Amino acid sequence: MSKQKKTAIEPTREENYAEWYQQVIKAADLAENSDVRGCMVIKPWGYAIWENIQRVLDGMFRETGHRNAYFPIFIPKSYFEKEAEHVEGFAKECAVVTHSKLEDDGQGGLKVAGELTEPYIVRPTSETIIGASFAKWVNSYRDLPLLINQWANIVRWEMRTRLFLRTAEFLWQEGHTVHESREDAMEETLKMLDVYASFAQDYLAIPVIKGEKTEGEKFPGAVNTYCIEAMMQDKKALQSGTSHFLGQNFAKASGIKFQNRQSEFDYAWTTSWGVSTRLIGALIMAHSDDNGLVLPPKIAPSHVAIIPIYRDETEREQVMVLARSIEQDLKGSQFEDIRIYTELDDRDLTSSERNWYWIKKGIPLRIEIGPRDVASGAVMVARRDLEPRDKSSVAVGDLKEYIIRTLSEMQAGIYARALKFRDDNIVKIDDNKEFYSFYTPKNAAEIHGGFAFSPWCGSVDCEEKIKEDLKVTVRCIPFEGQNEDGKCICCAKPSKLRVIFAKSY
Amino acid sequence: MSKQKKTAIEPTREENYAEWYQQVIKAADLAENSDVRGCMVIKPWGYAIWENIQRVLDGMFRETGHRNAYFPIFIPKSYFEKEAEHVEGFAKECAVVTHSKLEDDGQGGLKVAGELTEPYIVRPTSETIIGASFAKWVNSYRDLPLLINQWANIVRWEMRTRLFLRTAEFLWQEGHTVHESREDAMEETLKMLDVYASFAQDYLAIPVIKGEKTEGEKFPGAVNTYCIEAMMQDKKALQSGTSHFLGQNFAKASGIKFQNRQSEFDYAWTTSWGVSTRLIGALIMAHSDDNGLVLPPKIAPSHVAIIPIYRDETEREQVMVLARSIEQDLKGSQFEDIRIYTELDDRDLTSSERNWYWIKKGIPLRIEIGPRDVASGAVMVARRDLEPRDKSSVAVGDLKEYIIRTLSEMQAGIYARALKFRDDNIVKIDDNKEFYSFYTPKNAAEIHGGFAFSPWCGSVDCEEKIKEDLKVTVRCIPFEGQNEDGKCICCAKPSKLRVIFAKSY
Repeated sequence: MSKQKKTAIEPTREENYAEWYQQVIKAADLAENSDVRGCMVIKPWGYAIWENIQRVLDGMFRETGHRNAYFPIFIPKSYFEKEAEHVEGFAKECAVVTHSKLEDDGQGGLKVAGELTEPYIVRPTSETIIGASFAKWVNSYRDLPLLINQWANIVRWEMRTRLFLRTAEFLWQEGHTVHESREDAMEETLKMLDVYASFAQDYLAIPVIKGEKTEGEKFPGAVNTYCIEAMMQDKKALQSGTSHFLGQNFAKASGIKFQNRQSEFDYAWTTSWGVSTRLIGALIMAHSDDNGLVLPPKIAPSHVAIIPIYRDETEREQVMVLARSIEQDLKGSQFEDIRIYTELDDRDLTSSERNWYWIKKGIPLRIEIGPRDVASGAVMVARRDLEPRDKSSVAVGDLKEYIIRTLSEMQAGIYARALKFRDDNIVKIDDNKEFYSFYTPKNAAEIHGGFAFSPWCGSVDCEEKIKEDLKVTVRCIPFEGQNEDGKCICCAKPSKLRVIFAKSY
Repeated sequence: MSKQKKTAIEPTREENYAEWYQQVIKAADLAENSDVRGCMVIKPWGYAIWENIQRVLDGMFRETGHRNAYFPIFIPKSYFEKEAEHVEGFAKECAVVTHSKLEDDGQGGLKVAGELTEPYIVRPTSETIIGASFAKWVNSYRDLPLLINQWANIVRWEMRTRLFLRTAEFLWQEGHTVHESREDAMEETLKMLDVYASFAQDYLAIPVIKGEKTEGEKFPGAVNTYCIEAMMQDKKALQSGTSHFLGQNFAKASGIKFQNRQSEFDYAWTTSWGVSTRLIGALIMAHSDDNGLVLPPKIAPSHVAIIPIYRDETEREQVMVLARSIEQDLKGSQFEDIRIYTELDDRDLTSSERNWYWIKKGIPLRIEIGPRDVASGAVMVARRDLEPRDKSSVAVGDLKEYIIRTLSEMQAGIYARALKFRDDNIVKIDDNKEFYSFYTPKNAAEIHGGFAFSPWCGSVDCEEKIKEDLKVTVRCIPFEGQNEDGKCICCAKPSKLRVIFAKSY
């Protein structure tokens, strides 16, 4: 196979975007499906990305005063029943534990036994189980705000699953907070949305639109749901984080009462907010290309692949001395607030095989070191965001500084590219025909027009009609520029809002 | 209540050790029971200890070449049935998922629905589910060793539960590795046992005995189980970590085959090893006293409580300036490889209340700052490992260096105290009567004699008889000093081994 003609990933994005996504994951060895229905195995390179997401977000949560804790994985059925909308939203797809043991079935196998008096649900989200603890912890306004976060696994029995984007089990964090007043809770809700937006932009290099969900799309039981929406390279939207203002709904369901400053007892105000391993799906689809994964350096598990090239043992010795000294020189160094990690890859494979291995894994920089480089005191450096064969010669003495500068440049460049792509594909559309045409697939890959920023009258009927006709939904009522008089894109009646429409994951 | 007469924790260790343990947890606000049978809620101070355990161990795993990954929480019943001893060991207490939704029961409640074709077990350990992936990942000796670790939640439907020590759900790490040969797998098994022992001694300040479990006590399905055993202050043993040599048992059950260096296909050799939130129980019981939690500084979530004392606003301003400057001065400083964290506690409580709050939480150092201290340029520092009222005056200019030095001293001192206690309570006993007397409670608190280092003939019958008579078990066949001719402490027949007996958690 000639690498000059073909791409490392087949099919390409243009040929079949959905299949390209699966192949990028496979080529980068990020995750795989398991035999357990809809559950994925997150492999070391994929899990290392999740650990980086965790580390950075966890620091941001701490800086904003939150503390981590851990609550039971099981939710008694009776807890679940306390909030009507909530149970409605999650009851249809949940894992129910009904028994506590397996017994010999008399035929060489096992049968379930020890039926529980009350079934337990494996948490699809933890508002009710955490609420039960909070009801005990909160007595007075002096106990507030209570700012808790949990890193945990979650189970939702999804029917159609897809690695990272939609899986029966996934990993996430869920923030749960309790406040004295509506204002405090709303401030927290929006503050955490800002944290998510900053994280997505500064680390994942994904520009996001902040906004509010419509009634139909909000979290079951929430008063308001806010979200960040990102555009993928197929121009579909991916909801990348949500922050919910829960009002007093869950406080009433769980009995979270407190003595306020007027010495009266009142229900508290709560919020919840979360991001999940779905972010890895967003990361893949926002930046990767037809040669595989592209990672923003700030979230990459490792930054520099050092690839020594030699034909015999004498050359090997020369080359490895330089390779190890470069590895040593980079050890402990940083670009911005990120520690630089390296991979010295001297496996018994051709240099082309090793190069492509790291290209597909999305490592930001590759350094090739051959005997001639040792002699000349310069090495060849390749950037993942440029063409695979595009390499620069860098003097060994300048290498560290070059790497530090280049990683920052790449982070900014990857963001700028994603931002331009998104902005090029958000179109103000006020005409119904144009809107329908915008969402009619233009080619076999079914890549459509992108985000339509269009007037909407606010009615559920119009929202539903557009969803039915085009599989397009209101992604959010964006914070910026949503108040504008116009005519609804669906029914042409007067509208006061301009909202973001899109097909979505 | 006069603090000079009473202790902060009631009952004391002497009065009722088991209840003292619960009260220490409560007073330090580490964890609590939930309404979900046997499941605990780990509160922020307790969870922060777990995060420190994770951070240090994770670094040690990485240094020894391991990578983290994540596998499904559910194990199909059929996987579970593949290894006979394994299923026998776990089937009697497991959470079984049988349904995938809840439906309206027509009476305003919900009933389970959507029965699964095959029940799933919530993982009680992951050998079989991880084995299924490993069977796909391993093809050749070039893929080996495969060194994977997982941080996860685990469910075992334990009957009698106790916070941290034995809970239906707990958190742990489980290492799972695959090797070419018996020798490599055995080397890994013992290497990870050493990692656990170093961690327990260097960070938790708990001396441990390394040894091998007897046939009756080993992990279901393992060929050999190795463990570290620690002595608690009631002289009972607590198994603090295990490392299993699994031979080819699980490779055969999961089909982990590889092409070896002779180009033949063979089953691989595997290991697994784990420690859990149980370590927090060990930490509490090894070091705490009748005033509450005592934490080795290297594992404490925070190290210094700064307690400003003032009577009016003028004094407050003076005192807070110094308090903040001390806080600032300590920011980012380290003792050994540990970052120092501080808590500036200016809550509207008396200084005594704030002092006792931090004593019960086990913070290593407390600094009191009053107006006179501001004037004299010296502050009062109290160490958690000394009497509550024992305080030293330290000049502000020397404070940072004093703190760094003292935290190291305390870490060493806490370990030395635990080591002396343990060594004082390991007794070589060769006589049957003495052995039985050693394990007969001497007082109401039922604190018995400690660890007996005694000859054992190796028979299961003797092991069982001693267990039945005294609730004493063979904790391990220790690596050091176990080969010695003698007469079995139970049957008096010739024995070749001296082993560690104890009552245990």
